[in-house]
Amino acid sequence: MTDLAPAAPPEPPYYAVVFTSVRTDGDNGYGERAAEMVRLAADQPGFLGVDSARGSDGLGITVSYWRDEESIRAWRDHVAHAVTRAEGRARWYESFAVHVAKVERAYDFQRQAV
Amino acid sequence: MTDLAPAAPPEPPYYAVVFTSVRTDGDNGYGERAAEMVRLAADQPGFLGVDSARGSDGLGITVSYWRDEESIRAWRDHVAHAVTRAEGRARWYESFAVHVAKVERAYDFQRQAV
Repeated sequence: MTDLAPAAPPEPPYYAVVFTSVRTDGDNGYGERAAEMVRLAADQPGFLGVDSARGSDGLGITVSYWRDEESIRAWRDHVAHAVTRAEGRARWYESFAVHVAKVERAYDFQRQAV
Repeated sequence: MTDLAPAAPPEPPYYAVVFTSVRTDGDNGYGERAAEMVRLAADQPGFLGVDSARGSDGLGITVSYWRDEESIRAWRDHVAHAVTRAEGRARWYESFAVHVAKVERAYDFQRQAV
């Protein structure tokens, strides 16, 4: 058993923002800023959770969950986030894709302790 | 530069299935089956792409992209996939969450070669 677990799905409908990326070489201040952005996002109205993983091949996926489109727009327009996105294009990312999606159904599974 | 890149977003609307998981200890035949499922999914009608990452902490995220709900349902009901999901609950996963979502907008970024 581990405490690590995916974010529990809220009651649909809600929104998911899928951010898939390949980083440039080196850290260049990325790690610190990424942690700061996760803390800041978690303080925004409508934030429901986030999951993030980067594999040994370098491909990373972050999925953040939001109550509605309004909360996604407000986070997009947050100054610190907008500045960070510009830095991401300038320094941190080789390539990325963003998908904004309305979650229609969800379920989860948790192994029972034996 | 690298050939590694996120799946390019199709023209919305399309569907994303976000599968977030924590594995049990050991491989137990998981790796081979996971690769087989990716190959099989890619052969299904309506399959548009897939991205997958598992971080060193053990959290994994796989996002598959589909043309419509019908193609997601057909893949869900594919016998080999259904059998594999049952094995996943029995052996491979400590916990997981699934979010089925309709992508409303998407964009991507590719660094230009200098």
